[in-house]
Amino acid sequence: MGEFDLIAHYFTRPVRRAALGVGDDCALLRIEPGMQLAVSSDMLVAGRHFFDDVNPVHLGHKSLAVNLSDLAASGARPLAFTLALSLPAVDEPWLKGFAQGLLALADAHDIELVGGDTTHGPLNICITAFGEVPPGKALLRSGALPGDDIWVSGTLGDARLALDAALGKIDPPLPPEVLDAARERLECPTPRVALGMALRGIASSALDLSDGLLGDLTHILEQSQVGAQIDADAALQTMAARAFAPALRLADTQWLECVLAGGDDYELAFTAPAALRVAVQDAACSASTRVTRIGSITAGHGIRVLDANGRALPRQRWDSFDHFA
Amino acid sequence: MGEFDLIAHYFTRPVRRAALGVGDDCALLRIEPGMQLAVSSDMLVAGRHFFDDVNPVHLGHKSLAVNLSDLAASGARPLAFTLALSLPAVDEPWLKGFAQGLLALADAHDIELVGGDTTHGPLNICITAFGEVPPGKALLRSGALPGDDIWVSGTLGDARLALDAALGKIDPPLPPEVLDAARERLECPTPRVALGMALRGIASSALDLSDGLLGDLTHILEQSQVGAQIDADAALQTMAARAFAPALRLADTQWLECVLAGGDDYELAFTAPAALRVAVQDAACSASTRVTRIGSITAGHGIRVLDANGRALPRQRWDSFDHFA
Repeated sequence: MGEFDLIAHYFTRPVRRAALGVGDDCALLRIEPGMQLAVSSDMLVAGRHFFDDVNPVHLGHKSLAVNLSDLAASGARPLAFTLALSLPAVDEPWLKGFAQGLLALADAHDIELVGGDTTHGPLNICITAFGEVPPGKALLRSGALPGDDIWVSGTLGDARLALDAALGKIDPPLPPEVLDAARERLECPTPRVALGMALRGIASSALDLSDGLLGDLTHILEQSQVGAQIDADAALQTMAARAFAPALRLADTQWLECVLAGGDDYELAFTAPAALRVAVQDAACSASTRVTRIGSITAGHGIRVLDANGRALPRQRWDSFDHFA
Repeated sequence: MGEFDLIAHYFTRPVRRAALGVGDDCALLRIEPGMQLAVSSDMLVAGRHFFDDVNPVHLGHKSLAVNLSDLAASGARPLAFTLALSLPAVDEPWLKGFAQGLLALADAHDIELVGGDTTHGPLNICITAFGEVPPGKALLRSGALPGDDIWVSGTLGDARLALDAALGKIDPPLPPEVLDAARERLECPTPRVALGMALRGIASSALDLSDGLLGDLTHILEQSQVGAQIDADAALQTMAARAFAPALRLADTQWLECVLAGGDDYELAFTAPAALRVAVQDAACSASTRVTRIGSITAGHGIRVLDANGRALPRQRWDSFDHFA
């Protein structure tokens, strides 16, 4: 079997909903009449977004998950995706694992791989995902208003804890059960697609957290021309590893850095009017996704992080994890 | 200006037709009701698809052109594209040139950059382009029938001549005017978008030539379950540099290899019933694009290349230029 045949073997499956799938110059997709197309494209580079020795099943999962997370943040229903892959060599076990993780997540969201490209070069994974959303219903970054609550889905900070552990920054080392759970959050994020769709008409703004809460939240604040205050304790309680805090002996600033500037969370941060708290909880319940209220939108600009006594913490080194820096 | 701001500076422009452009989690596109979405994704890697020192204006052009060429081969009208870019460093003159070439071609086709991603890593350019096509009107690879003519657009083989010259394989070296013209074909291919749209309802199959005529044509033959015979002289006459043949002293096999297995042509190859020759010429005229009839589809399978006397040439080393080999 030639290299191209091998790649096709792992990635090509029968077309389901698409009008035309892999194997022609273009894929053809049917879009429900009247729906808008939502598009997200992310590029993952070895040594930057993942370790070279990461489990390829996890990498396949994460490569698609980060795009689905963008669709979720727009409230879009995923339809399909393309995959462009640059590989240093054709490593069959790696390809098999990568395809397995990728396609399992695709199946879980009932979407299909419709095309793409494969080439020889340094390992690079570029996925472009497509979804649909009714006109005017997409969740944007620009609609937050003073007085709105700030919410996050799932857990924050555990991915960063796993990254810091892998980089030898956690001393003493994490107990295996804590490390494994944290690494699961780093390597296998859960795109909050059902929650994003359920928040249409409820959330006033939303985005997905890829670079850290404070840095990402700034995009909402700038586009909505508002400020925010964050309850540090409420944010900290979303971190799964926090339950082991007494045993872990991390400094307070380490916990805060994980949660506030962690990166790689792939959770949704969103705002909603305080009057819609029950609606937010109902949406979260219908999506089987935990949400936590961690602060509120203010007039003005910038972010204030408040401690348990309502005092503003100094913004130290919790700057956004910058994928380019 | 930070690195991200610098990148945004060169690539972000006001939204025109898209519902939402760069700067949110997803771009939002309006699709004409009832139209199908055509999607193509290509990844270009330094040292494989282009030389490191290529003019960035040309590289920007070519990165989008190869995707528009796929849309053209499907008969789709381009709408928009995303750009994912991995850069080893932020080189402002390079970025400026790349954006200039990219956006000039986008403007020429009245399409816009709606989103994407930027990261740090080995130079890698991944563009995903979107177009629309009426249902049932897309040009596919699967419709060729015995007796159909085989046509190609524009010029074949000049891009390969430029590549061979750059690799020192042409002796004596090409005269500057020949080399410059050939390099223009290699670095600045012209996506045949207008021709592809004009061929809807006329061409029985089509694809774009990226890996060489014979190798690419095989995809049509396999998907249509037919064979082909190619008139070598007719194909050779499409090559612009062929006009200088007496002065260049290339071997006959070199000319044939450029035209039949050249790669990087980004021309359309298509089939059409012999009864529609006038319609094909009219379509080409309306698209201001030269087309040349170079052979015909046969029953059976495989390709026979015929010389001026109708004798089959041995298929030597004109194998498809394989981007993965």
